[in-house]
Amino acid sequence: MYRTHNCGDLSLDQLNQNVTLCGWVQKNRNKGFIIWIDLRDRYGITQLVFDEERTPKAIFENAQSLAREFVIQVQGTVIERESKNPNMTTGAIEVLVHDLKILNPSKTPPFTIENDTDGGEELRMQYRYLDIRRNPVKAKLLFRHRVSMAVRNYLSKAGFIDVETPYLIKSTPEGARDFVVPSRMNEGQFYALPQSPQTFKQLLMVGGMDRYFQIVKCFRDEDLRADRQPEFTQIDCEMAFVEQEDILNQFEGLTRHLLKEIKGIEVDTFPRISFDEAMKTYGNDKPDIRFGMTFCELNELAQGKGFSVFDSQELVVGITVPEAAEMSRKEIDALIEWVKRPQIGAKGLVYVKCLSDGSFKSSVDKFFSPEDLAAWAGHCKAQAGDLILVLSGDTKTTRTQLSALRMEMAERLGLRNPEVFAPLWVTDFPLLEWDDESKRYHAMHHPFTAPKPEHLNLLKSDPASVKANAYDLVLNGNEIGGGSIRIHNQELQSQMFDLLGFSKKEAQAQFGFLMDAFQYGAPPHGGIAFGLDRLVAILGGEETIRDFIAFPKNNSGRDVMIDAPAPIDDAQLAELSLKITAAKKE
Amino acid sequence: MYRTHNCGDLSLDQLNQNVTLCGWVQKNRNKGFIIWIDLRDRYGITQLVFDEERTPKAIFENAQSLAREFVIQVQGTVIERESKNPNMTTGAIEVLVHDLKILNPSKTPPFTIENDTDGGEELRMQYRYLDIRRNPVKAKLLFRHRVSMAVRNYLSKAGFIDVETPYLIKSTPEGARDFVVPSRMNEGQFYALPQSPQTFKQLLMVGGMDRYFQIVKCFRDEDLRADRQPEFTQIDCEMAFVEQEDILNQFEGLTRHLLKEIKGIEVDTFPRISFDEAMKTYGNDKPDIRFGMTFCELNELAQGKGFSVFDSQELVVGITVPEAAEMSRKEIDALIEWVKRPQIGAKGLVYVKCLSDGSFKSSVDKFFSPEDLAAWAGHCKAQAGDLILVLSGDTKTTRTQLSALRMEMAERLGLRNPEVFAPLWVTDFPLLEWDDESKRYHAMHHPFTAPKPEHLNLLKSDPASVKANAYDLVLNGNEIGGGSIRIHNQELQSQMFDLLGFSKKEAQAQFGFLMDAFQYGAPPHGGIAFGLDRLVAILGGEETIRDFIAFPKNNSGRDVMIDAPAPIDDAQLAELSLKITAAKKE
Repeated sequence: MYRTHNCGDLSLDQLNQNVTLCGWVQKNRNKGFIIWIDLRDRYGITQLVFDEERTPKAIFENAQSLAREFVIQVQGTVIERESKNPNMTTGAIEVLVHDLKILNPSKTPPFTIENDTDGGEELRMQYRYLDIRRNPVKAKLLFRHRVSMAVRNYLSKAGFIDVETPYLIKSTPEGARDFVVPSRMNEGQFYALPQSPQTFKQLLMVGGMDRYFQIVKCFRDEDLRADRQPEFTQIDCEMAFVEQEDILNQFEGLTRHLLKEIKGIEVDTFPRISFDEAMKTYGNDKPDIRFGMTFCELNELAQGKGFSVFDSQELVVGITVPEAAEMSRKEIDALIEWVKRPQIGAKGLVYVKCLSDGSFKSSVDKFFSPEDLAAWAGHCKAQAGDLILVLSGDTKTTRTQLSALRMEMAERLGLRNPEVFAPLWVTDFPLLEWDDESKRYHAMHHPFTAPKPEHLNLLKSDPASVKANAYDLVLNGNEIGGGSIRIHNQELQSQMFDLLGFSKKEAQAQFGFLMDAFQYGAPPHGGIAFGLDRLVAILGGEETIRDFIAFPKNNSGRDVMIDAPAPIDDAQLAELSLKITAAKKE
Repeated sequence: MYRTHNCGDLSLDQLNQNVTLCGWVQKNRNKGFIIWIDLRDRYGITQLVFDEERTPKAIFENAQSLAREFVIQVQGTVIERESKNPNMTTGAIEVLVHDLKILNPSKTPPFTIENDTDGGEELRMQYRYLDIRRNPVKAKLLFRHRVSMAVRNYLSKAGFIDVETPYLIKSTPEGARDFVVPSRMNEGQFYALPQSPQTFKQLLMVGGMDRYFQIVKCFRDEDLRADRQPEFTQIDCEMAFVEQEDILNQFEGLTRHLLKEIKGIEVDTFPRISFDEAMKTYGNDKPDIRFGMTFCELNELAQGKGFSVFDSQELVVGITVPEAAEMSRKEIDALIEWVKRPQIGAKGLVYVKCLSDGSFKSSVDKFFSPEDLAAWAGHCKAQAGDLILVLSGDTKTTRTQLSALRMEMAERLGLRNPEVFAPLWVTDFPLLEWDDESKRYHAMHHPFTAPKPEHLNLLKSDPASVKANAYDLVLNGNEIGGGSIRIHNQELQSQMFDLLGFSKKEAQAQFGFLMDAFQYGAPPHGGIAFGLDRLVAILGGEETIRDFIAFPKNNSGRDVMIDAPAPIDDAQLAELSLKITAAKKE
């Protein structure tokens, strides 16, 4: 027993007790005749006192040598503090030390272990084990634990069974790139790491497991974007004998439970919106609905009035920014520059200020009469004091640009409050999307998603118009989950592979086992997967996932702490019957 | 909503209710005018009745087409059965069907979906999704879920935090062979899949997480033995500021909790035995203590009496098999052949029958007097009716052989009752073991295990004699968990790597991050890891793990269902800057 209590335990309840504590030296105030030390562990901070008069001489001297991050064990008596700190759970007491053992000294840490550290991102990653000692990082990992336990217990109570699916599976070129694992025992052959347990969870449904879940690592060898990780965690779920409605209800229940259990927030029935409507109203299939600023299409009102910029375009569309008519010319100019940046790529931005006297001031006063602008304002539900911002162009691009502008304005106006939670189901996704590069259809969700039964007849004649029973759960503008009703019929699955450009032979080689399984009594089934990293981050009120992961990789997919990946021995390569190609070795 | 109830729900409580059920056709009895169908889902079986008089004609005719494993949906009325089946929860009722929908037909399954199937191992693996429908396999997966939830909730309540550690880490040649993962973004470099999260959990302790657990997949590229899997699951745990005693108590608590919660069994304080004592008493570091038959060493009593077979040997050692003196000459001969098989490799076997009249009959009557044999019996605590079996040879080999014989006798006598649970701590393992092949010491546990402080001075002079604070938890003759107190001091860790034959450069390249971490205030820490697959199997009363894994691999590391591993595209190889070496490609 190294300790009788932890550093968050003690209060006046333990007054005059002899206690043993362990922890790290957080802070050290040496007044010569008295030394105060803040001793830190996972559970809190306790103030230690070494006193020239009351602490044994040898111990007092030893205490002089203590520096930041030393690991120590102390024995002492709990005494009442003269000046209490009501912000600390242990703030009413301190421990008068009579014995001290240095368990491990510490070099001076490369950055301060404080809530606000002086350490840069790279340094913090290299010394991640020190970064984890900092309260904000530690708290995020503890928070993640709470969320995943709550998920497990909720699903388990609802009859879902945690089944572990394999990590060493088969590579399939569909979707993102696989990480592969050479097999030593099967020369020239490779396993792949799963991008998700999709086919296995479907096989569990064929196997009659009825309700499955797993919190599972998944892998994608993508060119990393900011805040993407090559390995990430999914809450993976599947149910048999269900329709879309059953799944939405079940996982709305889970999400509501998490909001209640973790955040203490009660949320109403989640609104639903179709993909088409989301694109039309928000320009985005994962709209943030914590605020309005919905799109108002202005083609009818704004075209044919002689403003050629609008007249030639497929779409003229605006948003109403509340109480922003006061923006200065300079601010507006900056906003115009903002939308013109290559990341957004708009050609320009039209604005209409709805002034408090009922008049309008716009960048297109030359082309539109006050009555025209009043009609815009009416259509866009703009009131006196509001600002209408309008973009035009081809539909897809313009919607994306206006969506970015909408988010930016919300950010500037402080409407993206991380402590407000606005979940939303987006439904009726298209089954397929056309890929200009490969000149073929891709599955929008994945190749196992079922078309809506009433659209089956369109599969051949008009594939692009086919909708799927596929849905995303969106929280505060982030997709936190997505799923679908799956195909459970061998012929339909085969037809789907045809549509996606698989030859019969390829389909059989890669997914033959699944299509075989469908011939032995596959039940109707569907499911959903949540991105745990992002879910936890958003519940935690943040949008970057990195600090919710204990040991994340950087944007080149490297773990800079352990320095991985790394070269391996030639002997190891030889055992795997592999050679690094000369061209690249240099 | 596909169903109002599941197939395990209904009883007389629902009499006369209209219900909708879904499931698989388990059995089909067609009497011409009446058809009974057993409908199965995860939750149970419900008997359906299609009756020429009471079921609509079209439905009745459709029911004729139903065959095994068809997936159907039925609507009907709950009625009381004439002949009730008290062995089924739904045995008092049946459902008189008035509507039937075939959701998916099924080809005739390649083996019967019954508790005892006619399917061989290979076939069952190939159609694993059908095998999972069988009650025994399904029950094992549900059982595993219960165990892992119980583990998580117990540990979480005890303050342990589930922290996910990375799967893409760095290859280290120590220990078993790593599976490696080529990195596309870092040419010529590789990640490795973790053999365990050992170093990461230690870094979490350095990071102040204090108590960590994770149920996590681990990977070892070994030549597979029966009942080994290339990927397996560990309950991985670590604690800071603890001594061995704290860890043993904590995880004895967990194990006791599981036995209580899962099996309803209360177990006393677990006995403890040192490694040396276990080897001396059972010839084995994971003894099955559900029965006695402990070793009695006979050197003093059996040597120097003119029996040259014994006289020349390092060890003469026996076991007393209770109530086995009645074995026939033929049975004894068969036993002698059994120990001579190459798997055991003994040269011969001496027996002494302790007859009911107090006399002895042995295979060495020529060399030993009745008084000699009486002395053996006294030393071996053999009573009238018992059989003493004696082997001799060099100590290590003979103990191993006698241990195998002890287990075999216990098996034959039915002493290995799977519903009796006898846990045991084995402690004080040697720190190192000498490897004749590589002519150097290997870490018995792993290179991070701390020597006992009182043995530190022997590290240089007599490394083989150094014991570690390392321990295994043994249950019914199986190691279910193992762990140790770790080194937390940079110098000692460095010395340990020296001892294991690492150059300073190698040690730094592979484990520099850990030794760095130890210089920034690493707390004393230790932990344990349980093999979940085996733990679950043993709690389930079985010794083979395969059916407790949803999708296991075969002994060549193949998943025969999905046919992995498999060749990958040349393009994929090229992206990874890899070539399969010509010699092996053929």
